[in-house]
Amino acid sequence: MSTPWRIGILGCGGLGKAAAALLEPKAEMRLVAVCDTQGWAHCPAGITAADVAGVAPGESIAAQPIGRRSDDPIGEMVRLGVAGEVDGFFLALPNLPSDFLPSVVRRFAEGGFQGVTVDALKRTVAVEQILALDEPIREAGMVHMTGCGATPGLLTAAAALAAQSYQTVEAVDIRFGVGIANWDAYRATVREDIAHQRGMDFEKAKAMSDSDVERFLAERSWILELHDMEHADDVMLERAGVVTRDKVKVGGLVDTKRAKKPVSTSVQVTGVTFEGKRSTHTFTLGDETSMAANVNGPAFGYLKTGLWLRGRGITGVFTSADVMPRFVR
Amino acid sequence: MSTPWRIGILGCGGLGKAAAALLEPKAEMRLVAVCDTQGWAHCPAGITAADVAGVAPGESIAAQPIGRRSDDPIGEMVRLGVAGEVDGFFLALPNLPSDFLPSVVRRFAEGGFQGVTVDALKRTVAVEQILALDEPIREAGMVHMTGCGATPGLLTAAAALAAQSYQTVEAVDIRFGVGIANWDAYRATVREDIAHQRGMDFEKAKAMSDSDVERFLAERSWILELHDMEHADDVMLERAGVVTRDKVKVGGLVDTKRAKKPVSTSVQVTGVTFEGKRSTHTFTLGDETSMAANVNGPAFGYLKTGLWLRGRGITGVFTSADVMPRFVR
Repeated sequence: MSTPWRIGILGCGGLGKAAAALLEPKAEMRLVAVCDTQGWAHCPAGITAADVAGVAPGESIAAQPIGRRSDDPIGEMVRLGVAGEVDGFFLALPNLPSDFLPSVVRRFAEGGFQGVTVDALKRTVAVEQILALDEPIREAGMVHMTGCGATPGLLTAAAALAAQSYQTVEAVDIRFGVGIANWDAYRATVREDIAHQRGMDFEKAKAMSDSDVERFLAERSWILELHDMEHADDVMLERAGVVTRDKVKVGGLVDTKRAKKPVSTSVQVTGVTFEGKRSTHTFTLGDETSMAANVNGPAFGYLKTGLWLRGRGITGVFTSADVMPRFVR
Repeated sequence: MSTPWRIGILGCGGLGKAAAALLEPKAEMRLVAVCDTQGWAHCPAGITAADVAGVAPGESIAAQPIGRRSDDPIGEMVRLGVAGEVDGFFLALPNLPSDFLPSVVRRFAEGGFQGVTVDALKRTVAVEQILALDEPIREAGMVHMTGCGATPGLLTAAAALAAQSYQTVEAVDIRFGVGIANWDAYRATVREDIAHQRGMDFEKAKAMSDSDVERFLAERSWILELHDMEHADDVMLERAGVVTRDKVKVGGLVDTKRAKKPVSTSVQVTGVTFEGKRSTHTFTLGDETSMAANVNGPAFGYLKTGLWLRGRGITGVFTSADVMPRFVR
């Protein structure tokens, strides 16, 4: 085994904690740097999952024994990357506002980082901003992998793969199932999902009291149905030449009272073969796999691909529909 | 649209004919060269699917208006490649004996071809021989893509992709269903399947007359059941770091008289996530897609990836589990 890749994670929330837990047993990668909005840590010998798990909601890594406070923790991460202390970064930060992560990627490129960054962005508008950075990223000598979570990510790649059987792709339908046993552990997310319902918007959802939310959910048997979501699978599959973005649909069912997924998460790719036969390939995720496993696993698989490309002198922005993730041991 | 890639196909059997038909409407690729065991053709302006379809079973492209007879048609293909007349070749020849295609790939490398070759090889022993050519192929400045059909190929890639959700992969199970209305359009392939039956081997299968084959199939109600097949998915997934080869199983049902598939073709990937949950992802091909669509589509998708890699100075052998095929328009 050669020296492990030195990895940094930006963000110590749910995604960052899961990423740290997933990395811990890996021989090929070692977590050496983390940051959040108030602080950062750098331990060349390795940061444990427990170190990151110890950051309570609302707290910062700065308050941990390994942490340091900073007014610009992202700047510290860029500095570590430029100093050659970190090979690849996973951007596990919430993308609010929607140009936040693109601005972070730009900071790495402008700062002179020549390694690899990866994101698990969801929204089309954000991935489009990342794709527009292709030239500066290429010129900086950096690789950025975008849309590399579950959807977009794992399911987008499956769609690009399934498309190979067809002469023309007619439709890509992504359906996800989410089950949460206890809606009020995810108040913000559930309100966001309510905002997408017919006749609702963000203002109305935000103004709802908890009992309004309870009543709204109960009237729908606790299941929210989501249609035509703005997911970057569309622009990524269009860029990969698979299908125009209007043919890509993303929706799903969220059960706000039961942990069991109301429907399996899947992608269906319908097309016509060179012989004129219409058919549908289906990729279905096992219900027992969590969102954390389906987002973080692919993200590090794509980070490994990015490191492979970078090692061969290839730079620029790639999506999960362009290249194959590599299994990280 | 830039100039299309100039493509050569080695083989005018069922696979070669389907490949020519699939390429015809593509703007990104143009078929300019073909060969079989007795002859070859080169038309820079393009060879039509009808030209290749016109080669009757047992006949040669040499007898067609565009064809020429040769004692060494493969040598003619290598010469065209070295002369810069062809960018990429699809090796759609039956691999009998099992070191035949590896020897063809070696001829391209030793002849000084600096483009891309792709195969849809099935057997582990053959793909292993190809993988052993990595160094000479890399040094020759060539890219070879191996195991790039349906299985190995499309389903192997789906397995490598699905594996990303897991910490450890426990099993990869590939089940294929094939229906061919008319076995004698796929003489070589059916003989290869017969070679896998109990008490048979490649020598015996090769020695069978057409009526021997008919009798053999009729005795089995025209359905060949295949278990624990020696399919290169195992060595390819092992090389990609996904799972050891003993955990990869390939089997299926081939109906040699009815076009309808006796079972849907699928790959199931079972693993354990970083949270310790065991689950199974499934990728299922639509029954209406033919073997021809599921083999040739990916083969040209991987040829496009090979051309992309070669254009960026990357050479050597890659499998369908290593890289993502690119959609060919």
